[in-house]
Amino acid sequence: MKLYSFWRSQATFRVRIAMRLKGLKTELVTLDLLKGDQFDAAYLAINPEAVVPSLIDGDGPPLVQSLAILEYLDEKYPQPPLLPKDLRDRAHVRALGQMLAMDAHPLVVPRVRKYLEAELHLDEPTRNTWQKHWMELACQAFEDVLVRDRRSGKFCFGNEITIADLCLVPHMTNMKMLGTDVARYPVMARIFDGCMQLEAFALEAPMKQPDAPRPN
Amino acid sequence: MKLYSFWRSQATFRVRIAMRLKGLKTELVTLDLLKGDQFDAAYLAINPEAVVPSLIDGDGPPLVQSLAILEYLDEKYPQPPLLPKDLRDRAHVRALGQMLAMDAHPLVVPRVRKYLEAELHLDEPTRNTWQKHWMELACQAFEDVLVRDRRSGKFCFGNEITIADLCLVPHMTNMKMLGTDVARYPVMARIFDGCMQLEAFALEAPMKQPDAPRPN
Repeated sequence: MKLYSFWRSQATFRVRIAMRLKGLKTELVTLDLLKGDQFDAAYLAINPEAVVPSLIDGDGPPLVQSLAILEYLDEKYPQPPLLPKDLRDRAHVRALGQMLAMDAHPLVVPRVRKYLEAELHLDEPTRNTWQKHWMELACQAFEDVLVRDRRSGKFCFGNEITIADLCLVPHMTNMKMLGTDVARYPVMARIFDGCMQLEAFALEAPMKQPDAPRPN
Repeated sequence: MKLYSFWRSQATFRVRIAMRLKGLKTELVTLDLLKGDQFDAAYLAINPEAVVPSLIDGDGPPLVQSLAILEYLDEKYPQPPLLPKDLRDRAHVRALGQMLAMDAHPLVVPRVRKYLEAELHLDEPTRNTWQKHWMELACQAFEDVLVRDRRSGKFCFGNEITIADLCLVPHMTNMKMLGTDVARYPVMARIFDGCMQLEAFALEAPMKQPDAPRPN
């Protein structure tokens, strides 16, 4: 398998965690989204949206969209499962993941930040406020659900690692990079810390990536 | 079942089509998102994100997030299926849906439009340009995939109605409301027309909803 990745991409982080949890080996191909590598013709032939991740698995067409890739990996390599068995619980886990991956993340990706700067001429503080606003708004609802739902546990769904955790950890990692106070979301912060004690999460963190900036 | 809906919501439109395809009856509860009904305490207890749709099915906790609800309905009421059987095809269909539902729709929802106006003080033409930009950008990539993928057919995936069509139709409906030229995306426009000849799509269109504005 071959995974097209960018160190800071939340979406690719989700997929990297899943692959490590399932013991899948992959060749990592890094793109610098800030330099525009994703617009190279060769990459557009793989991913016409010019986004990461893209996963090549055998001879078939490339797999795109992180949540679709997570479901694919879980269906093809079922152990350990990333979704519970009960239908309503599956919906709960998927919905939790989507609260972060659909309602917050699309608002802070590079192409949106670029539009805010180049088209709307917003200054850096205003752009940072935008990012924090949507990231924190999603946390408020997510934390609220975790607090009141009986299924919350050591992780988002009891003591099992699920797709919800694979979305939570990249989201919280991004929050920390933005300098937001994650202690305001204590259940999320506790789950984040629990996940980061596991190798599959810790070893795939953005700053551990081969294309991450190196300290001088 | 009880579905919380808003006539113009793309996300709720997706769920309404699925329920009609599967012959499921539901009580519709309409919220006026422009007036702020979604922030009523009673609704926040159902959906802490203050968004639609929410689905009540029996005694369990409410189901939220349209894509999670679609998967739930498809797992609980498998006929007719909304996903193909082959794993790679399932990933393709899910990814198509997410290209519109994750990468475009979250940028044009009421809360974002409100932020553009109230926080960023953008005038109406600039806000309309924003909406069209993200809706059209998603179409470019989506059309490109449909054109070159052998699995495209009468609908997004061969001759079967799938989750991809349930995301395409609301997206194209919104494009038309915004006054964009959908003929620039001929495959999408053809699939849209094909879907709208089916009752499940036509009867659930925004303007057919009980809370839609009535012509004077």
